[in-house]
Amino acid sequence: MLHFAVLFALLFSSSSHAADFCVAKLKGAGSPAGYACRMPSNVTVDDFVFTGLGVAGNTTNIISAAVTPAFVQQFPGVNGLGLSMARLDLAPAGVIPMHTHPGASEILFVVQGKITAGFISSSANTVYVKTLKKGDVMVFPRGLLHFQINAAGIQAIAVVSFSDPDPGLQITDFAFFANDLSSELLEKSTFLDDAQVKKLKKVLGGTG
Amino acid sequence: MLHFAVLFALLFSSSSHAADFCVAKLKGAGSPAGYACRMPSNVTVDDFVFTGLGVAGNTTNIISAAVTPAFVQQFPGVNGLGLSMARLDLAPAGVIPMHTHPGASEILFVVQGKITAGFISSSANTVYVKTLKKGDVMVFPRGLLHFQINAAGIQAIAVVSFSDPDPGLQITDFAFFANDLSSELLEKSTFLDDAQVKKLKKVLGGTG
Amino acid sequence: MLHFAVLFALLFSSSSHAADFCVAKLKGAGSPAGYACRMPSNVTVDDFVFTGLGVAGNTTNIISAAVTPAFVQQFPGVNGLGLSMARLDLAPAGVIPMHTHPGASEILFVVQGKITAGFISSSANTVYVKTLKKGDVMVFPRGLLHFQINAAGIQAIAVVSFSDPDPGLQITDFAFFANDLSSELLEKSTFLDDAQVKKLKKVLGGTG
Amino acid sequence: MLHFAVLFALLFSSSSHAADFCVAKLKGAGSPAGYACRMPSNVTVDDFVFTGLGVAGNTTNIISAAVTPAFVQQFPGVNGLGLSMARLDLAPAGVIPMHTHPGASEILFVVQGKITAGFISSSANTVYVKTLKKGDVMVFPRGLLHFQINAAGIQAIAVVSFSDPDPGLQITDFAFFANDLSSELLEKSTFLDDAQVKKLKKVLGGTG
Amino acid sequence: MLHFAVLFALLFSSSSHAADFCVAKLKGAGSPAGYACRMPSNVTVDDFVFTGLGVAGNTTNIISAAVTPAFVQQFPGVNGLGLSMARLDLAPAGVIPMHTHPGASEILFVVQGKITAGFISSSANTVYVKTLKKGDVMVFPRGLLHFQINAAGIQAIAVVSFSDPDPGLQITDFAFFANDLSSELLEKSTFLDDAQVKKLKKVLGGTG
Amino acid sequence: MLHFAVLFALLFSSSSHAADFCVAKLKGAGSPAGYACRMPSNVTVDDFVFTGLGVAGNTTNIISAAVTPAFVQQFPGVNGLGLSMARLDLAPAGVIPMHTHPGASEILFVVQGKITAGFISSSANTVYVKTLKKGDVMVFPRGLLHFQINAAGIQAIAVVSFSDPDPGLQITDFAFFANDLSSELLEKSTFLDDAQVKKLKKVLGGTG
Repeated sequence: MLHFAVLFALLFSSSSHAADFCVAKLKGAGSPAGYACRMPSNVTVDDFVFTGLGVAGNTTNIISAAVTPAFVQQFPGVNGLGLSMARLDLAPAGVIPMHTHPGASEILFVVQGKITAGFISSSANTVYVKTLKKGDVMVFPRGLLHFQINAAGIQAIAVVSFSDPDPGLQITDFAFFANDLSSELLEKSTFLDDAQVKKLKKVLGGTG
Repeated sequence: MLHFAVLFALLFSSSSHAADFCVAKLKGAGSPAGYACRMPSNVTVDDFVFTGLGVAGNTTNIISAAVTPAFVQQFPGVNGLGLSMARLDLAPAGVIPMHTHPGASEILFVVQGKITAGFISSSANTVYVKTLKKGDVMVFPRGLLHFQINAAGIQAIAVVSFSDPDPGLQITDFAFFANDLSSELLEKSTFLDDAQVKKLKKVLGGTG
Repeated sequence: MLHFAVLFALLFSSSSHAADFCVAKLKGAGSPAGYACRMPSNVTVDDFVFTGLGVAGNTTNIISAAVTPAFVQQFPGVNGLGLSMARLDLAPAGVIPMHTHPGASEILFVVQGKITAGFISSSANTVYVKTLKKGDVMVFPRGLLHFQINAAGIQAIAVVSFSDPDPGLQITDFAFFANDLSSELLEKSTFLDDAQVKKLKKVLGGTG
Repeated sequence: MLHFAVLFALLFSSSSHAADFCVAKLKGAGSPAGYACRMPSNVTVDDFVFTGLGVAGNTTNIISAAVTPAFVQQFPGVNGLGLSMARLDLAPAGVIPMHTHPGASEILFVVQGKITAGFISSSANTVYVKTLKKGDVMVFPRGLLHFQINAAGIQAIAVVSFSDPDPGLQITDFAFFANDLSSELLEKSTFLDDAQVKKLKKVLGGTG
Repeated sequence: MLHFAVLFALLFSSSSHAADFCVAKLKGAGSPAGYACRMPSNVTVDDFVFTGLGVAGNTTNIISAAVTPAFVQQFPGVNGLGLSMARLDLAPAGVIPMHTHPGASEILFVVQGKITAGFISSSANTVYVKTLKKGDVMVFPRGLLHFQINAAGIQAIAVVSFSDPDPGLQITDFAFFANDLSSELLEKSTFLDDAQVKKLKKVLGGTG
Repeated sequence: MLHFAVLFALLFSSSSHAADFCVAKLKGAGSPAGYACRMPSNVTVDDFVFTGLGVAGNTTNIISAAVTPAFVQQFPGVNGLGLSMARLDLAPAGVIPMHTHPGASEILFVVQGKITAGFISSSANTVYVKTLKKGDVMVFPRGLLHFQINAAGIQAIAVVSFSDPDPGLQITDFAFFANDLSSELLEKSTFLDDAQVKKLKKVLGGTG
């Protein structure tokens, strides 16, 4: 018996990398494959459990909605495991605006309420849109523009999963209007009118 | 303007493979990367929506539980997208027995009730176990043994996601006892007693 | 000697898949990893050569610019090889509007003229913008919004490469305005004004 | 000529990462893709050579067998190269008990003796079992339960390779019985009898 | 109980792709990820077993050596599993000439005799060479030039594994001299003398 | 509105790894997936721009040619992004000698002049060779031997891209003759004559 116990001890105890998992050391230097691993001896079950999705996000904001992420930055246990989660809360008028996840596909499960969701293909700009009820699932292929809108008069909740621990989130409106990209370059590259650009820059805190 | 419309038409209309997605042709020959793609012109939004998780699975069985998959075989829209989903229903005495997913990590979200879940590391046989309440999330690293057990007196529901469209499911009891693996080989390779093996082979329909 | 000649013959001659390359059969069923391979015996050097980038694209269009792709659909030799190319032509007022490649990074080399190029990060909406002269190179990380604008009074040419044979191209304006996505959903999910939406839908041929 | 010598010097001499290899720094922080690289200037041919598989493992133990690994922890030269090796020694009554490698496929070559080996599919619990003689090869697909048993009255030796530098090794008996997983949870999740569980916990040093 | 049996039947029986394995259909169209899968119902244990490495290769040839492959073309069971094997036989004067595997790393285990093996790094042309005895292991990083030479007066045998089911094999001498590449282009691109080129073209059956 | 701004701040500001990019810290310890990431707050647009390819390389050397790389070591912005670039300059008699990139495919665009380029398959030693004019593109599949030779009486320029930020470059002549690999081993493993080996070792600075 000893032999195997010793084998296990030799194989794995002296190293911060294990075949099994790689709980993220968020403070250290990341790499293209994710964060460095914490020593397994410092890892407990609580590194694999995240309790933040049990609480509704605050939807008293301009979009009447909230995204509560359980990405690697919030939930270090998913580092290197190829997936992550988030919770969506949509008040009656709530909307998750047009956005992409640069490096991940998404799958959505409606926990409560009704949600109209859609994505747009790149190949022919085809729109795939559907109103989903409780228990329905929809998948949004990686990198494509998509959105979610409350489709009933009541609070909606969804759980979404991603094919990456760090899926990113690029909301088109924020990318266009919430920074210092000059109105001139923005208008040339989007064909939006100057008045429209200025209006949304103001709303979203952009300059330039 | 014409130029871009023509560009899009030229680029994408004549082909069954698109950068965007690859809805599975389940009847054809698969490949190591998944199923062949259906022609995009034959794809509709319903290929990206799955409604089967809205209905409770039948838990009147030996484990008082049900797994309802939305894997690529049930939900062809996830083919090639690196993720899939399933619904777990656990009656008050329900248990999803010890199992692995040979090629995928899993993340679980408790929709209703309480669930005691755990996994066992390979490196030191460490057990990571926790009782999860509604809204809690737990991640099970790829390929490791894990289980889920109802932890309260009421029906529990969870939604689980996987890092692969076709995660596989190997329940240890079924692998050991629900086939024709000879009792002799099984006992030698598991150290289980002959009486135990025979008893469970009988329960699970195994022979040999 | 014979032995090795025979070895080579045995190893590779009877099969349509070779370790070396996999020239795309564009008509057949694709898979998540790309198109099926043509038989190596039917492959010639011309399958690995593409001459279409030697000719300027037609820039007499609304964007005064042209994208000439050498993606797998035009250049089957790149199938499975992890890269592809395209040529950009920008007349003096030319612009490649805001867009993403859902599954690929891009690297741009200025062959002639000057180009102002930029991308927007998802993490903080930071803008990275620069005017590039002949011989300069810029990289656009995968999935992020970016654009290219002629920055001098003369015709500009660039060669761009992608980290995927089939990078996709999602031009935000086309995704928003060149299809039948309803104005109502579009306005809710982008905060754009109704007049702006209607105007661009008209320009780009959208309905709804 | 100078030019190329200079080119090579410029390209590679100042960096700890080379395109060619990445010999593991086992003491540092690992990452999801493996261990950090040692400086190429500190690497010698001995980092790519492992001599530990030339010696028989000690088989005087409960399984009459030994696994001698040449995984990345023992053989840092395989870091990042997508493979590793091990030696199996089976005394006449030897058995490598039911186990999985959570992240790797395995291929076995019989060097001496006879071995009965098998694996169990997840999809239908089908058993694939065969008695292998000297020179035979068998492949065990990633993540599936498999075992190896001496099939002749003499010492058997096998060399096994894995599709990962750090394949992991989860022996079901050790995962179930060699830790502090409570008998109650274990019995509920495996349907094993209490007596069986207590007996094997005692043999394998488990508690709870 | 029924429920699970039915679940398994539903999940997997109607499809040619399974999460577990993908035995190659060698006659059909391959893809960048490998060959199409045979129906699991037509797969038997013999698809996962290869007996061809138990027999010595014929070494009565110019190199006094033989490579017997168990690549996907000979051993369809490894398709999609990320590894393959081969047997090397080296008569007393035997040599496996300088070669690369374009897409795979290799690990070598000496079964019998002594072998001098080496590889050359790309970054600084450093040579890593070592004489290996029975039981020694050496790893050759992916894509780099390497060779193996019998280092004792007796027959040597090695088993080698690759990190790919289809690693390819490009022997430099064969690539240079065993085809119709014109002597002019070959001499310009290798700096070899005309007499040397002509001599080896003659030996290896090349023209031009 | 605040909610989203806060969300972005929480998600990304405290970490050196972002979903978007991972600019290389060249001095630190690399990993199999590339270099560690610099803190995004220390990254500017100039990390994504490389100006070194605008200048002709020095071709007054033995090959009358120059390779100017924009690999990750010169252009840290490509780290983790799956691509890189280089510029080739060929004087009238210039040649990029037979070489491989151990881990990457290459695509070449002729900016000026004419270039005869070719590669050799591993499966049947087939030569694929073509004379390319300005604007032509050719792809060289990963790991295969290839070369480029000036095909006209004037200076030629090409831009090449790779499917890896760190493609490596193994020039066969340098690997054979520009190091201390013993003439004996080299001659045995290449069948080259002793006089040829000694001559080229002298030219390229090799010993042994």
